[in-house]
Amino acid sequence: MQQNEPKFRDGKIVRSEEPLNLEMPFEKLDGFVTPTDSFYVRCHFPIPKIDKKNWRLRVEGEVEKPFELNYDELLKLESRTIPATLECAGNSRNFLEPKVKGVAWGLGAVGNAEWTGVPLSILLDRAGVKAGALEVILEGADAGPLEEPKQPSGNVQFARSIPIAKARADVLLAYRMNGEELPPQNGFPVRAIVPGWYAVASIKWLQRVIVTDKPFGGYYQTLDYAYWEKRGDLTELVPISEMQIKAEIAQPVANEILQANSNVRVHGAAWTSEGEIVRVEISVDGGGNWAEAKLIDQPTRNAWRLWEYDWRTPSKPGKQTLVVRATDSRGRTQPVERDPDRGTYMINHLLPVEVEIR
Amino acid sequence: MQQNEPKFRDGKIVRSEEPLNLEMPFEKLDGFVTPTDSFYVRCHFPIPKIDKKNWRLRVEGEVEKPFELNYDELLKLESRTIPATLECAGNSRNFLEPKVKGVAWGLGAVGNAEWTGVPLSILLDRAGVKAGALEVILEGADAGPLEEPKQPSGNVQFARSIPIAKARADVLLAYRMNGEELPPQNGFPVRAIVPGWYAVASIKWLQRVIVTDKPFGGYYQTLDYAYWEKRGDLTELVPISEMQIKAEIAQPVANEILQANSNVRVHGAAWTSEGEIVRVEISVDGGGNWAEAKLIDQPTRNAWRLWEYDWRTPSKPGKQTLVVRATDSRGRTQPVERDPDRGTYMINHLLPVEVEIR
Repeated sequence: MQQNEPKFRDGKIVRSEEPLNLEMPFEKLDGFVTPTDSFYVRCHFPIPKIDKKNWRLRVEGEVEKPFELNYDELLKLESRTIPATLECAGNSRNFLEPKVKGVAWGLGAVGNAEWTGVPLSILLDRAGVKAGALEVILEGADAGPLEEPKQPSGNVQFARSIPIAKARADVLLAYRMNGEELPPQNGFPVRAIVPGWYAVASIKWLQRVIVTDKPFGGYYQTLDYAYWEKRGDLTELVPISEMQIKAEIAQPVANEILQANSNVRVHGAAWTSEGEIVRVEISVDGGGNWAEAKLIDQPTRNAWRLWEYDWRTPSKPGKQTLVVRATDSRGRTQPVERDPDRGTYMINHLLPVEVEIR
Repeated sequence: MQQNEPKFRDGKIVRSEEPLNLEMPFEKLDGFVTPTDSFYVRCHFPIPKIDKKNWRLRVEGEVEKPFELNYDELLKLESRTIPATLECAGNSRNFLEPKVKGVAWGLGAVGNAEWTGVPLSILLDRAGVKAGALEVILEGADAGPLEEPKQPSGNVQFARSIPIAKARADVLLAYRMNGEELPPQNGFPVRAIVPGWYAVASIKWLQRVIVTDKPFGGYYQTLDYAYWEKRGDLTELVPISEMQIKAEIAQPVANEILQANSNVRVHGAAWTSEGEIVRVEISVDGGGNWAEAKLIDQPTRNAWRLWEYDWRTPSKPGKQTLVVRATDSRGRTQPVERDPDRGTYMINHLLPVEVEIR
């Protein structure tokens, strides 16, 4: 991990100023809900300035009755509040060797908040989805030119699609985060929340919902935010979707100095998609031996689960390598090695944290 | 256009040795059918060494009765012979400014041959395509590692998909080219011919036909051989498919010195996809004034049409810029300017040929 002196803003690590990318120092993890002002911020373009009086959401495409609604109308609809963990698909990129392009996230491009909003299914039912609908494209108000190889010309609008079944199941159009109005950097006035998916799907500054009868080939699910999947002899490009099971250690932190023969609380969080975390194991010798950590609270689908482990540090001074791994209710666990077909995303292989005993 | 001294092999320009890429000097255009030994060669990997005794074609995927057949069995099936023009999607890349990556083709990565083989529809009918089939993947025996950014790991098999309707309509599994057994560099023992499509779809060294119920996301139709299409606010990555209408001048060639006040035969070929060339126009002053060229022979769908124009050169010495443009039966004509969303492919904007009058 790079050890350049990071800049901080409001207690968050500044990964870039323009576009704004802020990371939560993961050692600050302190409870199931991440406070809004600690929540990481991921922007691809300047933050759109949106006046909620003028904001409109259009629902269109393969629907019987396309319509538009304003902010007040949205707030009058039936709402739900759900916790959901959002992890940036590039979280932990800074652990990749050799170094790769992209925002150099450490452990903290992840957070868990309570989101209040309108189920997308309510709007889809009102519009009347036509038979043959396959996907729903969610379009944000953020756009700009790209400077990548093979990019499209002109401004590219941030947009992503999800299968129609997922759109109907549990996607929320959230206007409140942890009980307060959504802040601008988190998608004001409305952010889609796609539970269990990497956060790239949870479109901020939502302005359009487009039902389509064919797969969407937008930039952010082809040239970017996609990975290679081997299917027999053939390899296919697949948009990044569900979060991969992962556990992270909040404390101790890398290179921390710990007293020999002392009691140390090792703690962190673990999450998965469409399943529950059933086991978190910890190794203090780099993966040789494993012990079970204690899971805190009850599992909540598509939200992380906190865990802790009481470690009696060894009596002998020296380096110790902590590694943690999670297993979920569908039997999935974390890979030991990095899969190169994931490019610079979906980083859930085992991440060692080295500490020193004195 | 680059003016490095090119190397030649068997009368063709060597664009690269490994993989083998050979271009026909387009000035050699001399008749409707391109002789096999003048036909351009485009390889992505080393040419597979295939013994026709061991060759098998598997037809599988979303079919009732997957099967395999050998070379002799294929040759016993009902066959057809069709002319079809194949143009490499990167033909004329050398005219792009600024210079781009990729094989630096001039005008000659295009040819028109007579292909003999079995309609793919016969094999699909034998296999029994299931309801819900969407595409047919054609897989070649050529494969290898890639050295491009964002590439898949390991060996990538050359493969491409076409819509099921196109597969049924007129795709041929060709084993003869201009009446002779297909040569190794042209796809021996069997090459798919996808009439009207850029040649990347006409898979050489064919070994597998896979019917699928979802769009194929292979490397050669996503990260490569794809372009950006603007659809309202949104931009989508689309696999390269049909050839774009285009006319090319075979003679005179760039920088040729012509006598003042002489009769010069300007001639070349023009092609389009799913339509007929109905007009070819020529300008000798860089696009200021246009005259109609004479179309030769009758139109043949998805094969090029030859054209000629008798030019009386001016009496005044100096440079003259020849430009040619085609129009087809569907009213399509060539763009004046290059569209950057096509990347390094589908190059059919007007290409000037400068000559000198003395």
